[in-house]
Amino acid sequence: MRLIPVSLLCLGLCAPAWCQTAPLRGYSADSSLLERDWEAKFRAIPDTANLRAYMQRLAARPHHVGSAYDQDNAEWILARLKEWGLDAKIESFDVLFPTPKERALELVEPSKFTARLEEPAVAVDPTSSQRDEQLPTYNAYSIDGDVTAPLVYVNYGVPEDYETLERLGVSVKGAIVIARYGGSWRGIKPKVAGEHGAVGCIIYSDPADDGYHEGETFPAGPFRPKDGVQRGSVMDMPVYPGDPLTPGIGATKDAKRLPLNEAVTLTKIPVLPVSYADAQPLLAALQGRVAPERWRGALPLAYHVGPGPAKVHLKVKFNWDIKPLYDVIARVPGEAYPDQWIIRGNHHDAWVNGAEDPVSGTSALLEEARGVAALLKQGWKPKRTILLCFWDGEEPGLLGSTEWAETHAAELTRSAAAYINSDGNGRGYLNMSGSHTLEKFINGVARDIEDPETKATVWKRLQARAIANASSGDAAERQDVRARSDLRIGALGSGSDYTVFIDHLGVPSLNLGYGGEDEGGIYHSIYDDFYWYTHFSDADFVYGRALAQTAGEAVMRLADAELLPFDFDALTDTVRRYVNEVRKLAADKRDQIVERNRQIDDGVFAATGDPRRPSIAPKKEAVPPYLNFAPLDNGLAALQRAAEVYAQAMTRVSENGASALAGAARRDANTRLMAVEHALTLQEGLPNREWFKHQIYAPGLYTGYGVKTLPAVRESIEQKQWQLADQEIVRVGKTLESAGAAIDSAAAALQ
Amino acid sequence: MRLIPVSLLCLGLCAPAWCQTAPLRGYSADSSLLERDWEAKFRAIPDTANLRAYMQRLAARPHHVGSAYDQDNAEWILARLKEWGLDAKIESFDVLFPTPKERALELVEPSKFTARLEEPAVAVDPTSSQRDEQLPTYNAYSIDGDVTAPLVYVNYGVPEDYETLERLGVSVKGAIVIARYGGSWRGIKPKVAGEHGAVGCIIYSDPADDGYHEGETFPAGPFRPKDGVQRGSVMDMPVYPGDPLTPGIGATKDAKRLPLNEAVTLTKIPVLPVSYADAQPLLAALQGRVAPERWRGALPLAYHVGPGPAKVHLKVKFNWDIKPLYDVIARVPGEAYPDQWIIRGNHHDAWVNGAEDPVSGTSALLEEARGVAALLKQGWKPKRTILLCFWDGEEPGLLGSTEWAETHAAELTRSAAAYINSDGNGRGYLNMSGSHTLEKFINGVARDIEDPETKATVWKRLQARAIANASSGDAAERQDVRARSDLRIGALGSGSDYTVFIDHLGVPSLNLGYGGEDEGGIYHSIYDDFYWYTHFSDADFVYGRALAQTAGEAVMRLADAELLPFDFDALTDTVRRYVNEVRKLAADKRDQIVERNRQIDDGVFAATGDPRRPSIAPKKEAVPPYLNFAPLDNGLAALQRAAEVYAQAMTRVSENGASALAGAARRDANTRLMAVEHALTLQEGLPNREWFKHQIYAPGLYTGYGVKTLPAVRESIEQKQWQLADQEIVRVGKTLESAGAAIDSAAAALQ
Repeated sequence: MRLIPVSLLCLGLCAPAWCQTAPLRGYSADSSLLERDWEAKFRAIPDTANLRAYMQRLAARPHHVGSAYDQDNAEWILARLKEWGLDAKIESFDVLFPTPKERALELVEPSKFTARLEEPAVAVDPTSSQRDEQLPTYNAYSIDGDVTAPLVYVNYGVPEDYETLERLGVSVKGAIVIARYGGSWRGIKPKVAGEHGAVGCIIYSDPADDGYHEGETFPAGPFRPKDGVQRGSVMDMPVYPGDPLTPGIGATKDAKRLPLNEAVTLTKIPVLPVSYADAQPLLAALQGRVAPERWRGALPLAYHVGPGPAKVHLKVKFNWDIKPLYDVIARVPGEAYPDQWIIRGNHHDAWVNGAEDPVSGTSALLEEARGVAALLKQGWKPKRTILLCFWDGEEPGLLGSTEWAETHAAELTRSAAAYINSDGNGRGYLNMSGSHTLEKFINGVARDIEDPETKATVWKRLQARAIANASSGDAAERQDVRARSDLRIGALGSGSDYTVFIDHLGVPSLNLGYGGEDEGGIYHSIYDDFYWYTHFSDADFVYGRALAQTAGEAVMRLADAELLPFDFDALTDTVRRYVNEVRKLAADKRDQIVERNRQIDDGVFAATGDPRRPSIAPKKEAVPPYLNFAPLDNGLAALQRAAEVYAQAMTRVSENGASALAGAARRDANTRLMAVEHALTLQEGLPNREWFKHQIYAPGLYTGYGVKTLPAVRESIEQKQWQLADQEIVRVGKTLESAGAAIDSAAAALQ
Repeated sequence: MRLIPVSLLCLGLCAPAWCQTAPLRGYSADSSLLERDWEAKFRAIPDTANLRAYMQRLAARPHHVGSAYDQDNAEWILARLKEWGLDAKIESFDVLFPTPKERALELVEPSKFTARLEEPAVAVDPTSSQRDEQLPTYNAYSIDGDVTAPLVYVNYGVPEDYETLERLGVSVKGAIVIARYGGSWRGIKPKVAGEHGAVGCIIYSDPADDGYHEGETFPAGPFRPKDGVQRGSVMDMPVYPGDPLTPGIGATKDAKRLPLNEAVTLTKIPVLPVSYADAQPLLAALQGRVAPERWRGALPLAYHVGPGPAKVHLKVKFNWDIKPLYDVIARVPGEAYPDQWIIRGNHHDAWVNGAEDPVSGTSALLEEARGVAALLKQGWKPKRTILLCFWDGEEPGLLGSTEWAETHAAELTRSAAAYINSDGNGRGYLNMSGSHTLEKFINGVARDIEDPETKATVWKRLQARAIANASSGDAAERQDVRARSDLRIGALGSGSDYTVFIDHLGVPSLNLGYGGEDEGGIYHSIYDDFYWYTHFSDADFVYGRALAQTAGEAVMRLADAELLPFDFDALTDTVRRYVNEVRKLAADKRDQIVERNRQIDDGVFAATGDPRRPSIAPKKEAVPPYLNFAPLDNGLAALQRAAEVYAQAMTRVSENGASALAGAARRDANTRLMAVEHALTLQEGLPNREWFKHQIYAPGLYTGYGVKTLPAVRESIEQKQWQLADQEIVRVGKTLESAGAAIDSAAAALQ
């Protein structure tokens, strides 16, 4: 690893206070001092009383897409932004948003039971009784359906669960599956069930993962009560998010729309989410094999797999309406580089009242906007343009951000320098994930923010946790945490509004939020409201303030930098880990197949079979070829060489002061820096999902939110598509070389 | 590893059929052929119909120590042995055996609940209604007590659970603890609770470990029903088993007995076991911190730690009576070496009807006795004396075997060549554990027994399982299983009647039994009976037959060998692994303390604390010294050299035929071989528990049944007694050298 001088000086040689007076990356010494001054002023602004008031207002009534209060909230936000003197407007889109017309779930054999499908109001919780405005419990973008079939329990309903079922000799063909929430993003469950021939899918919250097993249930405690239901989208977002009718283009009034039956991101089978009170009689009626140990939840019954004798009737019918979205966008024009945009976003729509998801984050963004407005009045002039975006329609499918970004794709490709996202926020640790070009940058911000509980910096607290968590593991990981100047940040999968920016447009992105100290079970239920949040989460809003300080400072520091503070050493270091991972994955897959074939030949499966619980032995598979990883290694080498050249160039710039560069040279260098993340994308996208263009990060086709890094290579290996894997290794290797060339070009501009 | 010629020839060079005609270890070619002939005759004898009839008879009524049917069973067994022509008798002892006079458990705050403490009869199960003869549910050797105190949930109640409680700031001083069964032998729970200041201990069966979470409950399925209770001993057996009043000596009529208040193996606090139906209201009434994830069971509630507000009244009072034991012993005198005994045992007493525990094993032993008697009539003449022992009083504390062996200690030390134990038996795989001097021997037996389900040998099936289980782990382990000529056998801890033989007297011992394909939840309850066993376990008794074949053949092969077939390569190989383990344990302990101290210094605990869930940071500890492992290494080297010398001597004997040795030389060699396992003991025993004399194996002081190998060294490291560890390393190293000398002496006798 290469070290830039600032870090060198900081490594244990100086107290944090000293470090914070060292020039910021991308800043000259003078501009750095000035910036620190403005940032300190900014950090003093966010006020917990305001955050509380915003939440009380925004979460006062249900505000899902298409609801009256969704629009009302957008207009109220707009009014606040304008009141503070910001240039703001609402951009509107028209999207497919189905809502339930009919929902029924019954056990018809061997006994009768009709599911309640309702979340009851709770006396102490005033907003829980707003039944007229609440969306019923359902999964958005399920197709219509009316099916009656034997039931099969499929655990989390992920691909490996179906391998287990196959070993047990159980097929879901023609069956309705019941899967528990967890183990994957919910949309994966009906997708995989459908691929295996199921005709319907019920998803329930098992109390082992989300209920009394975790602690007291609402309102006595924060966890999911027996009738609580997790709503949520089941759109096939790993193929493309956003309006199912307008893939790749903005859902403007006059956009060309697909007919409904050509929208491939709708589910193939009907889906309905239920509470554990509704699931229990269904699961209790199952017989057949006892579910494997790992499959059993915390209901007081013996979990069986089925199929049957439980037979179930599932009916769902939807209003397939087009509904308006209201994105609220404030723009602060940049003085030096108005065509370089720093974009900050958080959604404002919710499934119901949504105090935690998303209002805890929306409120922080609103308070950041107030802070930005206040600084502007004090004379602060950001070099780059800042966009503060309050997205609508995130919950059903990242609609507001996706449609906006698709509409403005050309400008964004030219102008977007970075995107910073947040969503729900809570008490605890800073979660920071995103583009590794921003790893060093966001570590620097985290070193400035005070943790409200420990008064240490949030960075220090994160590092302590990383050390503590590694303690149970190996000493090498602990050593990595201690020795490395920065904490590693996670890669982005999907699940919030950064998706279109990083995955579709190749804009360096970050996702920020606090959490980890409070758990709860109100996600996407009517109980995610002001009462719950102020009893069981960041009740005094100090972590809301910390989020506003963190994200606000990040936006300012990016907007004000003379040179965009991207760093390519962390990128190289991280990509090297990914390359090692996929190489090991391929080797492991191969070893597993060789070993399994040997065991089949040796009669191991026959010898370990239990005649009372017969299992189907796996079939022999062709031994995979060795893959040629050289193109990836070459790509990585090119990336590393370029990162080293850039680091040396930056060292020279730092020694001379960034402002020593002529204005035009700086502008040129910034423009070239903005091209680097884009160089990590390919226009043709990932195999079978061209909307996803980034070659380093993507949500997994079979994990949904969970990230797959080097996705084209990793997923083709996971899916045993060896020929495709060999091809993708070449493509991704070339992509890394392109990124190296883009970095070289930026380094050249610094000469 | 050294290979003896027979194994060499077998390693993949020959089909099993060929191998089975190769001379048995310790046999000449001729005597081996003759032996195989007798063994084949023997294996044809055990009859499943007899096993079924024995079980029906022996489990027909409750037959705990002191019950009428316990004596009746002993006399019935004796009558059968005599009827078959064997020389048999009953040996009787008088032991302390408390039974309940009063039992009460109530929740007194914050609400009232009185525990039922009863297992209801089940209509379909005829013996479950024999209430008058059933022992109530209780833990034997709990002291009397009458306490009322706040309740604390302590998970499994093992030492590390109390470390967790300490971190949570929860003390059990003055409290009644409720622990779930599992994680250790039950007697450890009140012992550790008492050491931490608790005044009472409730033990319950959580449905996560023993109930509906595993499958359907009795009588619909095999698992523990809500009112089922696990009885059992809580005597402090890791200090000494057997009659608490006569440590180290036989509890004969006129034995010198300790006064009750000097019996250190009674518990220090009152204990009572309960069902999960009785535990649920108690656990539901607990508040305080939510129990850590790993602590939560499968009851439909939020597990809290307490203390309180639940307050509990616990009262137990016992009849502290002396009761008779009836050991039934059959003796078949040896022709060549009458003073060399092969001892085979299984207990006959139960907690209630005990079909599985122990009658499934008792029946096999009885059928073996019938087989032995039949062979004798056909002219078979074992070279060594065979003792077939039906122990009484195993359940309360290994009473019958311990008192018998203590009574006959002097003869046994001179004459016992090996002890082979069994206990409950079921469907599935052969479990073989014991002295590693017998590892190669018992592998040879397992290669001869046909698995009733797969028709492969039980050895082959075991190997297949070892490969399959290793598959999820590392390839090195799989390679070890595949490449090694023998399967590794486990070491013996405690929990059955082998304890006095191996741990106290240093007699090479084995424990055998089938199982692993059926689980159940009737252990030590009234439902462990003929109905349960014939519905949910080895219903057609084919694995009962397999056990009779396995153990019977092992007894014959040991009894008939010209030279005792002990092998010291496996011993050396295994001790080397143990030495490596304790060395690593010491290094890990040191690293952990260094790391934890560093984290305390670095403020990691402070930085990761959650003010809403405060935890107590651990205190800094003195860094342990490096231990000197050289004495262990030297001992191991001596053992290895001797094993090599012995192996060479055996090779020469095998080449010349064992019978080439003169009769006196053989006798001499056998006598010296019998001294080897004894050389692994020390008369002064283990630190603070002199009854336990073996230096390689012992039940753990804080695991109860679970084995600790190299116990003096391992436990002193675990307990951070570094000075003691250094001393024990020297003592154990010398013990290994003594064993090496004993092996050398045996090798010399073969010249």
